This record gives sequence, structure tokens and C-alpha cells, in this order.
Amino acid sequence: MNKALEHQIALEQGEIRHVGVMDLGSNTARLVVYAFEPHTTYKLTDQVRQRVRLAEGLGENQRLQPAPIERAVETLNLFRSLCQASRVPHIIAVATSAVRDAQNQGEFLRQVKRRTRLDLRVLSGTEEAYYGFLGVTNTLDVRNGLMFDLGGGSIQITRVAGRKVTHSVSLPLGVVRMTEQFMPANPPTRKQVAALRDDVSGQFGQLDWLPADRDADAGALVGMGGTARALAKLDQESRRYPLERIHGYVLTLERLDALIDRMSGLDTRGLLAMPGMNADRVDVILPGALVVRELMRLSGYNCITVSGAGLREGVFFTEFLKGARSPVIPDVRSFSIENTSRQYGAWNDHARHVRKLALELFDQLRELHGYGAWEREILGAAALLHDIGYAISFFDHDEHSQYLILNSDLSAYTHRELAMLGLMARYHRKGEVACGAMCDLLEKDDERRVSVMAAMLRLSEYLERGRRQAVRQLTCNIGAAEIVIAARTRGDASIELWEAGRNTGLLESVFNRSIRLVKE
Amino acid sequence: MNKALEHQIALEQGEIRHVGVMDLGSNTARLVVYAFEPHTTYKLTDQVRQRVRLAEGLGENQRLQPAPIERAVETLNLFRSLCQASRVPHIIAVATSAVRDAQNQGEFLRQVKRRTRLDLRVLSGTEEAYYGFLGVTNTLDVRNGLMFDLGGGSIQITRVAGRKVTHSVSLPLGVVRMTEQFMPANPPTRKQVAALRDDVSGQFGQLDWLPADRDADAGALVGMGGTARALAKLDQESRRYPLERIHGYVLTLERLDALIDRMSGLDTRGLLAMPGMNADRVDVILPGALVVRELMRLSGYNCITVSGAGLREGVFFTEFLKGARSPVIPDVRSFSIENTSRQYGAWNDHARHVRKLALELFDQLRELHGYGAWEREILGAAALLHDIGYAISFFDHDEHSQYLILNSDLSAYTHRELAMLGLMARYHRKGEVACGAMCDLLEKDDERRVSVMAAMLRLSEYLERGRRQAVRQLTCNIGAAEIVIAARTRGDASIELWEAGRNTGLLESVFNRSIRLVKE
Repeated sequence: MNKALEHQIALEQGEIRHVGVMDLGSNTARLVVYAFEPHTTYKLTDQVRQRVRLAEGLGENQRLQPAPIERAVETLNLFRSLCQASRVPHIIAVATSAVRDAQNQGEFLRQVKRRTRLDLRVLSGTEEAYYGFLGVTNTLDVRNGLMFDLGGGSIQITRVAGRKVTHSVSLPLGVVRMTEQFMPANPPTRKQVAALRDDVSGQFGQLDWLPADRDADAGALVGMGGTARALAKLDQESRRYPLERIHGYVLTLERLDALIDRMSGLDTRGLLAMPGMNADRVDVILPGALVVRELMRLSGYNCITVSGAGLREGVFFTEFLKGARSPVIPDVRSFSIENTSRQYGAWNDHARHVRKLALELFDQLRELHGYGAWEREILGAAALLHDIGYAISFFDHDEHSQYLILNSDLSAYTHRELAMLGLMARYHRKGEVACGAMCDLLEKDDERRVSVMAAMLRLSEYLERGRRQAVRQLTCNIGAAEIVIAARTRGDASIELWEAGRNTGLLESVFNRSIRLVKE
Repeated sequence: MNKALEHQIALEQGEIRHVGVMDLGSNTARLVVYAFEPHTTYKLTDQVRQRVRLAEGLGENQRLQPAPIERAVETLNLFRSLCQASRVPHIIAVATSAVRDAQNQGEFLRQVKRRTRLDLRVLSGTEEAYYGFLGVTNTLDVRNGLMFDLGGGSIQITRVAGRKVTHSVSLPLGVVRMTEQFMPANPPTRKQVAALRDDVSGQFGQLDWLPADRDADAGALVGMGGTARALAKLDQESRRYPLERIHGYVLTLERLDALIDRMSGLDTRGLLAMPGMNADRVDVILPGALVVRELMRLSGYNCITVSGAGLREGVFFTEFLKGARSPVIPDVRSFSIENTSRQYGAWNDHARHVRKLALELFDQLRELHGYGAWEREILGAAALLHDIGYAISFFDHDEHSQYLILNSDLSAYTHRELAMLGLMARYHRKGEVACGAMCDLLEKDDERRVSVMAAMLRLSEYLERGRRQAVRQLTCNIGAAEIVIAARTRGDASIELWEAGRNTGLLESVFNRSIRLVKE
């Protein structure tokens, strides 16, 4: 019985679980639903959001007001109804800064319990920061750096070293608060902007761990929360970015400054006309951008890696990894690949054997390509994913694999890496590598890099044409004008040697040598 | 247990079968492999081709020559090896005109049997035509018309009325033969072109059933075989066609004439430089185009619908439908939808209920849209397919559904219909309909048509937000400024009414009326 089927049966028999995570923020309430097999695989299956503006009027006397309370209870009830409809047995509901800071918190929680039967758990600032850290650490390949989660009520900032939290703080600098306090209307005056900046930098200035230690690996600055996602979206729209993907997007200081400049002169109507602008966020986007800008200035990073995953995902991961030694996935890159490959029923002996052969070629042809550990890992990942497009159709399955690579949850790979993986899958059977729209994501020499690796992948794929592991091992002998590749076989390998023999062209052209395939 | 799982288990337990169909033609040998559950669902899982040129030298003494025989036996052995590797237990191997016409047929078949253990079945011209008819009839929505299958050695022509063969013939006008006989080099002289035309029209002229009966529905002219596919591909490349899909492509007489004009002046190098040209076919493409052109002239059709399915698929369908009353699928359109929907695990109560609600809206709002049976069927099909993109990711699943609709085996729908289905799925959750690249496939008013139907689909989808069939029935009351939609519900339908209530915008805009949703 194949793995995909086992997985599917596990799901039906209840080994696959469902969990709903609700998050009641100062501005927005959100529900995400995941299907998962503990420690092995997960998939988001539903998501819904509603702007509740729970913090409305909170500033005056630090009490949640009746109308926002009504909206919150109604929304939580709707979310609960959706979970029930979807037969999601387990719901985790958390609340953040608005509820945390409310004088009437106890009363509110009792009302929620009575009217929705939900046990709303109020997160401390430290907990909120920690879950955000978990959401990022399990979905981005970041070992060191600074993470922030800018919400409606507060910002959480966390310093991370070796995938562990070393410092964290929660400050009441959320975008709704900052907007109400400093910028009630668009466009703001210079004085208003300066006042906001002063306030923010005064508070950030207290944190002596904010700038990266000069002697250590500064790592990355990672941004979570609606503001970071909205800024990424606006920036992508302004440059016709070739991927529709926020998670992993890198927003540079230069581009953020340009965005702030552009927004600073616009009234609400002007802001609404910006491509990619979310109407719900139009009044808070500029104050949010200014908070982020101050954080960059004081911490010394020159770009932000935007994370689509944060608090809710972090809460989910504690469920997903319950019983493990740590709620941190040990190797988030290989987990990414396996999770995606399983999803398309492609986690099988064929894919693993193509990887084995491709890596044998990579290692033995190293003097010709000169690539290192990074390229080797990318080649292995491409080998594991090359056939996922079969899930759509045999025809053009190479193109479908590319589409799926660019649109699946391969969260730990950078956009550049995704572009490379997609192209390698796209050209694993035929054609000359042409980067097309992906060029914008690639760096110098990447087209060559992709061609070389696609060539090795292609030969390996045809050497495994029968999907039966008939070609056991390869030995390459590099000459000045020819590469002899000896294949040790087991049983009938005729279709493999025939197909490999008629598909050596790309490898010949990238190494400028003829290829002679012999049976060992 | 869900249907997708049942299907998958059936596959593992052997209810899903595999069959390989080999076809040894005069020019090319091909293998296709299908996985199928008899009478229910099928999917192509592998395909391989090799140019064997079996007919080489056949003209002289009507005997298959030693070298081509060697190539054929080798190729059949490779194909058999691939079937064994893929654990395909059942292989059907057929041969067409070259073997049919060979004086040494018996000797060849014995040699094939001895050296490959394959029982090669030689098809008569009538059988070949019939299997082609089956391949087309089960994959295109064509009731009446003329079908041709132009191969290397022969052309089969079949007249069809009411999805039944009324006449068929096999003539030795295959492209390899015509090339050898009339056009040994490119470009041909005018005299050579005229000689080929004379010969072809002389032979076609004998068929009194070739022109459509003036009193009957002329239906469509359907083209099968490598030449028809190659012409479609060349034409698509020359006009930047938005779909990568040959099956169902409509090639007009005007465009075929332009293509012939263009090719008539080119030598082999010039032909090879044409975008979309297949090098294996470069010497036979113009003679092939001229044969097709004569057939159009004498039969009176002004366009060809190209079929990607033909002989091999026809042979497959006799296996797929074994035991059924007829090897013809009764309703090829609904079969198309169900087959695709099952493939993505989306053939479920939710999709069917969304269709039910959407059709209730369609029927009750008919005075506002004025659409008929065709649009109704398209709306129902879009409802059944709207969620197939879930198989990729929850995020952007509307866009993924469109991608899958355009790239799956929805063979019985026209390209225009596929564009409409894709757009309706794309806009089933949000956004204003924008046809984009699909515009080229649509006709006047189709954008409006798609908007109206997407609006009805969208409301139905949100009324089925909990996927629990909580909204049972809809009653619409149309006023001058308002449409009141009363929903009869069962149990908790709060999430459904809430989500539907906040997603009425598109329906309001297409009918220029406000929508009031009430609980009945």
C-alpha cells in the first residue's frame, strides 16, 4: 500500500486530526483550521477573518466597550459554527493585547464562555512573542536574528540565536493604538509623523539587545502580522513581482522608504487607489510602516523577510509537535519538501532514487561544475519534487510540477530557491532552460546553475524511467571531450538505458562534452 | 469514507486496472498506459513514442524490410519492458497500414511473437476507422459529422450520424507514402503540389458520402493523427494561443490556407525554424496539410476540430467500457466533469449542493439574465468543479481551480467553454471578473455571461460555507430595486447566512439590484 494512501486512510480513521485556532486581536479576529498527522504532515484547510475592532474605545478607560464586545462574541460564535460544520473537534482560542490590557477582562472572558462556550486563553506578551517565534522558526529557514509581530494593539519583538529565544518584549505600539494616538487622519502632518517616530524610538531605544551583536551572525529581521504582510503586498504590486506569495518576501529598506514616501502624501482616497491596498487597513498602514521603519533604523537591518506565519501558526505547531522533545521542527527545509511531496502522493522510492542518482552525478562531476553544499541540497530537493505534477496530468507534468512548487507550502525555501526548484522540475524532461518570468527572482549565474542541475536531474530521471530502481549506481569518468558514465544495473534496465541514451543532450551541452553511457 | 479514498483503495486492491496500448504505425510506434476503474474513471499515466519508420522501403515490393523490422522489434521490446517495470499486466498491441499491406505480414508477426512475446493484432481499415471514431466520440461532444485519421500509411475517413458510424473507408494516402511518392524534397515544385492534389482528390472524389447531406446537421469535421495535431500546434504558436491544449482546437480553413502558403516556400531549414515544428515531422508536414486541405474542399467543412484522442484511445475505451451495452459513453460532457472532479477528490456532497443552489438561482432569476440550457449546464459544471483547487492549497484555491480546469482532461468541453468554466471557478469567491488572457477564447457577451454565472455560483458557495447542506432551498422574489432571497435552513446555518450576507456584491452589481437575504 502506498504512502499517500496510508496517509489518506489515517486521515479517515482519525489519525489525521483537525484543529481550529482562533485569534482575537485588537483589530481583527481570525480562524485557521489545519488537518494534520502529528509530527509528520499538515495542511491548512480553512481560514476566515472578520474585522472586529475590539479595542475601539479601549483607550479611554481601559475597558472593552459593549459594542465591540458584542461584535467579538458574535464573531467567535460564527467561527465556532464553522468549526462544528467542518467537524473540527478541537478549538484553541487565544486573545492578545486588547483583552490582555482590559480592566474588565474577567467579565469579558466569562461572557465569552457563557455565550460561545469557548475558553478564551489570554496570552501574556511573552507568550505571544514565543508563539510568533514558533510560527516563524517552523516555516522559515532562519537560525539567528530579530523577529517582530506588529498587531493592532501591540508589537512583540524577539531576538533569536541558534533557533532559540534570547530576549523578547511586548510593547503597546500596535498600529490601531498608534493611529488613534498620533495620526487620526490621512495624510498626517510632518509634526504628527515626527511625534510618532519620537514615541516609537524612545520605547525601542530602551532595548539594548535590539541591535545585532557585531561579533555574532546578525541573521535576518523577520516581520509578522498584518502590517508586514500588507507592506509586502503593496511593494509586490508596485514592481509586478512574479510570485503571488507573501511568505518569504524580502522587503528592502530602500523600497520601504519609497513606499512610505509615496503614502505620506496621500489622503484616504489616494491610499485606497494604490494597487494591492486592503481597504480594512487603509487608515493604519502608514503608522504601521513608520513603526517598522524605526525598528529597522534602530536594529540596523537593511531588509525584512516577511513571514505569513506567526502567532496562530505557532499555536498550531504546539499541537502538531505535542509530545516531541521541542516544538521546533529540527530540519525545516527537508520537512517542507517531505510535507509537500506527501501531499501530492510523490513521496516514494522513485523520487528518492532519482535523488540518489542525481547526487552521484553531482558529486562525481564536481570538478566540472564547482558547486557546493547549497546547490547539492537544492538538486536533492528538486529530485524529490520533480514528479509532483503527475497529480494533475501526465501531459505537461513537468510544467505542472513547476506550478505546484511555486504554489505549495514549501515555506522554508527562499523565493529565489523556489524559482530554481520550479525551473529544475520544469526542465527535468525536455527543453533548454529559459528562466522567463522567474528571471526577476534569480541572481547572476543562476540560469547556468539551473541548467547544470536540470541536466543532471534529467539524466537521472531517464535512468529511473521504469521507476523500478534498475540502475543501481553510477560511475563517471571525465575526459577532455567525453564523459563516460557507467551504470551498474539490476535485472532488465533496457528502457532506462534507452531513454537515458536519447536524452543526454542537455548534459552534453552544459559540460561541452559528449556523454557515453555504458552498462557496467 | 470518502469517494476519493474509496477510489484510491480500489486502485490499491486491484479494482483499478492498468492497461498498455501499443500502436505500431507506418512512421511511429507509440505506447500509452492508462489506470482505470471500469466504466467510472480513467487517467493516462504514461506515454512514450519512437519513430520507427516501419514502412521504409515498403513501396518497392510491398515487403517490410529487415532494418525497419529490427527497429520495430527493438522498440516493441522496450515498450514491453516499460509495461513490466510499471507492473502493467495487460498489453494490447495493434498494427496498422504498413503491416496490413505487407506481403510478409505473417512472417513479421511470427518474429514479433517470438522475440517480444506480444500478440500484435493487425487492424483492418474498417477497424482502424472504428477505433478512431471511438476515441473521438468518447472525448469530444460531437454527434454528427466527418472524422479523419491521417497517419503515415493511410487515412481513415468516417461519417458519423447520431454518434454512430454510417460510412467509413481507409485509403492509402498516408503522409509518408504521399511524401515519398510526390514530394521527396522541400520546397516542392508547383507541379508536385498539383500532382499530389490530383491524386488525393481523385481518390476522395469516389466517396459520395463525403459532402454532408444538405438536409441533415452537418456537424463537425474532426481530425486525428500526428498531422492534425502538428498543424494545430503550428497554428497555435503563430497566434500566441492562450491554452496549451491541442484536443478540441479549432483550425479554420482560412488559417490552414495561410499555413500551407507559409510552408510552401520553405526548405527544410526554414520549416525547422517555424515555432512549434516537430523535427520528426518536418518532411511530411506539407504533404499532410495538402491532404487535409483537399478533404476540406471536397467535404465542404470550413474548419477542423482537432482531436488528441484517436486510435489508441479508442482501443483503450473498449477495455474501459467492456461489459457495457456499448463502447460509447452515454453523456461525454458529464462524464468529463465527474472524471476530473474525482481525480481531485472533489466529487462530494458539497459540490453537488452548491450546484443545486446555483441552479435554483439560475432558474428563478431567468427573467433577469435570459440564459438558456447551455448556460445552465455550464453553471452546473462550474459548481461541480469550483473547489478542485483545494487539492493544491487553501490559499488561492480559486486560482488553482482555474489552472486545473485548463490543464485537466475535461476533454468534451470546447476551449471557449473551458475558459468560461475556469473564470467562473476563479471568481467563485471574490473579485470582479476580468477575462485577461482568456479573452481570445471568448465570444461577444461572454464576459457578462461569466460574471452573471460567477455571481450566482458565489452566493451559492457562501450559502454552503459550512459544507453541511444547512441551506436547503432558495426562493427568489424579484423587485424593481431589490431581490429578496429566502433561504430555508436546517439546523445551525449561521456561518452560511453571515458569509452569504457579506458576499452579495457581485450579484447586486450584475443585476443592478440590492440583495436581501432572509431566513425562511
